[in-house]
Amino acid sequence: MFRTTLTVTSAKEGDVIDITALVKKAVTESRIKTGLVHLFVRHSTAALTTIEFEPGALSDLKRALSIMSPDAAEYAHNRRWGDGNGRSHVKAALVGPSLTIPVEDGSLMCGTWQQIVLLELDVNAGRERSVVCTVIGEG
Amino acid sequence: MFRTTLTVTSAKEGDVIDITALVKKAVTESRIKTGLVHLFVRHSTAALTTIEFEPGALSDLKRALSIMSPDAAEYAHNRRWGDGNGRSHVKAALVGPSLTIPVEDGSLMCGTWQQIVLLELDVNAGRERSVVCTVIGEG
Amino acid sequence: MFRTTLTVTSAKEGDVIDITALVKKAVTESRIKTGLVHLFVRHSTAALTTIEFEPGALSDLKRALSIMSPDAAEYAHNRRWGDGNGRSHVKAALVGPSLTIPVEDGSLMCGTWQQIVLLELDVNAGRERSVVCTVIGEG
Repeated sequence: MFRTTLTVTSAKEGDVIDITALVKKAVTESRIKTGLVHLFVRHSTAALTTIEFEPGALSDLKRALSIMSPDAAEYAHNRRWGDGNGRSHVKAALVGPSLTIPVEDGSLMCGTWQQIVLLELDVNAGRERSVVCTVIGEG
Repeated sequence: MFRTTLTVTSAKEGDVIDITALVKKAVTESRIKTGLVHLFVRHSTAALTTIEFEPGALSDLKRALSIMSPDAAEYAHNRRWGDGNGRSHVKAALVGPSLTIPVEDGSLMCGTWQQIVLLELDVNAGRERSVVCTVIGEG
Repeated sequence: MFRTTLTVTSAKEGDVIDITALVKKAVTESRIKTGLVHLFVRHSTAALTTIEFEPGALSDLKRALSIMSPDAAEYAHNRRWGDGNGRSHVKAALVGPSLTIPVEDGSLMCGTWQQIVLLELDVNAGRERSVVCTVIGEG
């Protein structure tokens, strides 16, 4: 078992950050050849998934999240705390914080058009985000 | 590897139950210090995710699920089976049954505002729900 | 640790394929009695989840995905690439590519009404889909 924390900094709400290269680097450092890499984002207003990292698809994904959790809606979270990120919590809970990907011959087994992304969902910009990366398996 | 089953009882549709303390207790029992804890809810009308456990955010999440799967819609599942929980199956499949969280020094590596929750999505109230909890790693 | 690739062929967009029997077979082959089985679909326009495998519930799920990502919407991905599967990428990213299920006494610990399904979300029909299946645990 090998563990490291990946750190990325987002600039604004809606940023989608491709962390595939960081995950690959961690798998290489782990010296594990066959196994699984588990990722977990330690924040309640960010999420992890896979998508084709192409500006059109990213923009389409953000629109879908806004259908589920519209900007213009009134949020009970906002009324209570006044921090304006009710929609961020909702989107993060729906997409989820955790992702596991198989490793073979020391490489990620993602599809060709399948990149690993962190979704910055918070309305408050410029955040440092931590993703715990755990690699398990055989060397 | 350590395994236990966490059991919670919901009162009604839409209940969101914070299971973080139960998961922590299982990790302590496991005596595993560095590893992963995997959770799986064994039901097709409940789901697991993380969220800030705050009534406003929980209410906002439930509204978002109802946008995807409205109460007032007609469900093919209901027409076939007459049990009225078509919307429950849809929401559960979208959020998902499984979640994995890293463990370090015997503690969950969740963020400060990131609690582990079971979503009771069934329209039929008062259900006992089982979550299989598996801890893997090193003592 | 045991690994195999499950292969299924879809006929058209919206197909939901029950892969529970394939996963069970892989777990039996692995000879692992207590552990976890991890599944990962290696495509950006397919996804994995659990649901009651009943035509009504499957149809209701597809409608919910179309609320988030309507057929009639204009997709930035389509404008850029002209391949018409913008909605497929969005749905796949929201449902997610990965799923982990506990194994006990060599059996999957799914609930009675909880089948493991692959969602074919691409508009381009007749695709062969690969699901990497990794079983970890004790024999």
